Amino acid sequence: MQFADRLNNVETSAIRELFKLLGKPGIISFAGGFPDSAMFDVEGIREASQRALSEEAGAALQYGATEGYQPLREQLSAFMATKGAKDVAPEQLIVTTGSQQALDLLGKTLISPGDKVIVEGPTFLATIQCFRLYGAELISAPIDGNGVKTDELERLIAEHKPKFVYLIPTFGNPSGAMLSLERRKKVLELAVKYQTLIVEDDPYGDLYFGEAPPPSLLALSPQVPGSRDLLAHCGSLSKVLSPGLRVGWLIAPAELLAKATMCKQFSDAHTSTFAQATAAQYLKAGRMPGTLAHVRQVYAERARAMGDALRKELGAAAEFVQPQGGLFVWARLTGANGAVADGNVLAKRAIEKGVAFVPGTPFFCANPDHATLRLSFATAGVDKIQEGVARLGQAVAG
Amino acid sequence: MQFADRLNNVETSAIRELFKLLGKPGIISFAGGFPDSAMFDVEGIREASQRALSEEAGAALQYGATEGYQPLREQLSAFMATKGAKDVAPEQLIVTTGSQQALDLLGKTLISPGDKVIVEGPTFLATIQCFRLYGAELISAPIDGNGVKTDELERLIAEHKPKFVYLIPTFGNPSGAMLSLERRKKVLELAVKYQTLIVEDDPYGDLYFGEAPPPSLLALSPQVPGSRDLLAHCGSLSKVLSPGLRVGWLIAPAELLAKATMCKQFSDAHTSTFAQATAAQYLKAGRMPGTLAHVRQVYAERARAMGDALRKELGAAAEFVQPQGGLFVWARLTGANGAVADGNVLAKRAIEKGVAFVPGTPFFCANPDHATLRLSFATAGVDKIQEGVARLGQAVAG
Repeated sequence: MQFADRLNNVETSAIRELFKLLGKPGIISFAGGFPDSAMFDVEGIREASQRALSEEAGAALQYGATEGYQPLREQLSAFMATKGAKDVAPEQLIVTTGSQQALDLLGKTLISPGDKVIVEGPTFLATIQCFRLYGAELISAPIDGNGVKTDELERLIAEHKPKFVYLIPTFGNPSGAMLSLERRKKVLELAVKYQTLIVEDDPYGDLYFGEAPPPSLLALSPQVPGSRDLLAHCGSLSKVLSPGLRVGWLIAPAELLAKATMCKQFSDAHTSTFAQATAAQYLKAGRMPGTLAHVRQVYAERARAMGDALRKELGAAAEFVQPQGGLFVWARLTGANGAVADGNVLAKRAIEKGVAFVPGTPFFCANPDHATLRLSFATAGVDKIQEGVARLGQAVAG
Repeated sequence: MQFADRLNNVETSAIRELFKLLGKPGIISFAGGFPDSAMFDVEGIREASQRALSEEAGAALQYGATEGYQPLREQLSAFMATKGAKDVAPEQLIVTTGSQQALDLLGKTLISPGDKVIVEGPTFLATIQCFRLYGAELISAPIDGNGVKTDELERLIAEHKPKFVYLIPTFGNPSGAMLSLERRKKVLELAVKYQTLIVEDDPYGDLYFGEAPPPSLLALSPQVPGSRDLLAHCGSLSKVLSPGLRVGWLIAPAELLAKATMCKQFSDAHTSTFAQATAAQYLKAGRMPGTLAHVRQVYAERARAMGDALRKELGAAAEFVQPQGGLFVWARLTGANGAVADGNVLAKRAIEKGVAFVPGTPFFCANPDHATLRLSFATAGVDKIQEGVARLGQAVAG
């Protein structure tokens, strides 16, 4: 069978192969990219789904508008306001089937084969593959603990004139980095200076452990005139409430949003109205602040435990920035004292010792740093984290 | 903002403009393409969703496999067996976000810009747009009351060597036509003879009014050696249970299914596990046979009422084949006795008289028949159908 040419640009995720090994008994896994299902507010979601079926069954089970279920658009508009984006009208967002679909719609709407797109190095693996399927040529912008280096970003924008720049400014996957306020403003200024669209992907911004992070690019955009017209923002309930609902959203300038809506019409017609009505009822019931407070507290404990354990067990063999939010520690092997310095080598040895993580190389669209690894602290309790990192310490020592 | 070149191939549906007029008070609408929400088995879906959350909340609310939730794949395999496709293992199907996504994945997986795809003339509007977004050049194969004319189809396959042939063999949208058994076998033979993939879209096959229709191409494929390897089949719960769940499925040869799964990973990661677990519990509870019997009976009454009313009110001004299933009457204006002979003209006059339908022209990818119209009998009761067709009779007379 002859497949479309676009498939030549991608391959099935290297991570999927790794995940097949996770079934081994006794493995402690830091490999996942998902929230802890033990923290789902099942009772709240149950009540919300019941109200959806008793108060609005006709709408919740019928076809709906491609743009999204209006009561949910209104709730999401109000939710964005609580996060500092106070002027997002319900009509300025569309509901997507997870924020993965928002990325897919941006690719479908904007990328012609050969177009250049700048992403962080490292960035979300499924973004790389998603954009490549539409023929994008990806350019890697380097980051440090404060997120993307804006001087380098400006140089790359000027050189490559990209179709858009894709960033996860807050607790990015895999980097966990938090873009500083100063750099956020700089990114918005670059958008205006070079008239370049910025895509802000923000699934993790609500998961902060101490002080709130700087405002999102979207929330900051009123401070940089003209930037709002060059900004798309992807949101999601997956990391804070439930991935299984597949409820995300896309906020974008009107013309782009209209084109994305047209593309969505032919992608899946609309996102499950049952899931949308359930999410709308959940938000309306006012349970989100309590849910957020709970998950922040639990993940903060686990992040602290992982950081402490890494310092204790790996010492000079790894360096990392202690995450201030999100789900991930992004670490770099130093090779100190003859320790393993290659993430892929360490991953295989770690599995033998009974602990799993994802090596960093697949997260780079170019010039991978082979010394990097991503460790999720989201799904293991503190004891398991300590035990797992101790195993990692044995693996790294050789 | 500069959009992707692929958007030049499509436009927002002409039907959407028409639908804006439907809010006019007192309009009786035959324009919809959806089931009657009054027939949704709300209680059954409520129970199923509750069981999903009490028995398997962790899985129902968490990320899931891109291929689909395994208990649902097993239920769908069993459901297909009840419909004569007895050898579809759960691993031979993937769950899609409505069958619209199955079409999108086929487009993404198979169509390179400039590839030719044969569709029926007329066919499902969102299929035309979906495939054009991937750059397909569509070829229109003529139909009659027994579905696609296989002699013409063979000629077109031989001439154009299409990437695949897309058919809705049973009670197609908009045609309502039922492909005869003889032609079904011929289609499978053509697949083998020309080594051409056939895509069978079958959202309506369960909605028959009297005798069951001939077996699906999938169910027939064992009778034509080699044809199963050249056959993709799209199924859906939207027309029989609830569109709002967005649960469809794709059955395809292994290599194609693997590529479609990879594309789905980057389209929306997976279909809502909450919706999938709810659908699985619904099927497991054994309610589907009763639900099908109920909707068949109600739609059969309405189809009969619409046919009777059309014969009475429009007489020689319209000709149509009485549908044996599905949601639609596909009619052709004859212009007899000076009656209106153009579907678009009639649509405007009908709105003035207080009745709406969809003119047939947008359903053709080429050479539209301007005399055609699609009338849905699904959502209006018998009294409303009689009243609406009476208004249509006034409109057609001028």
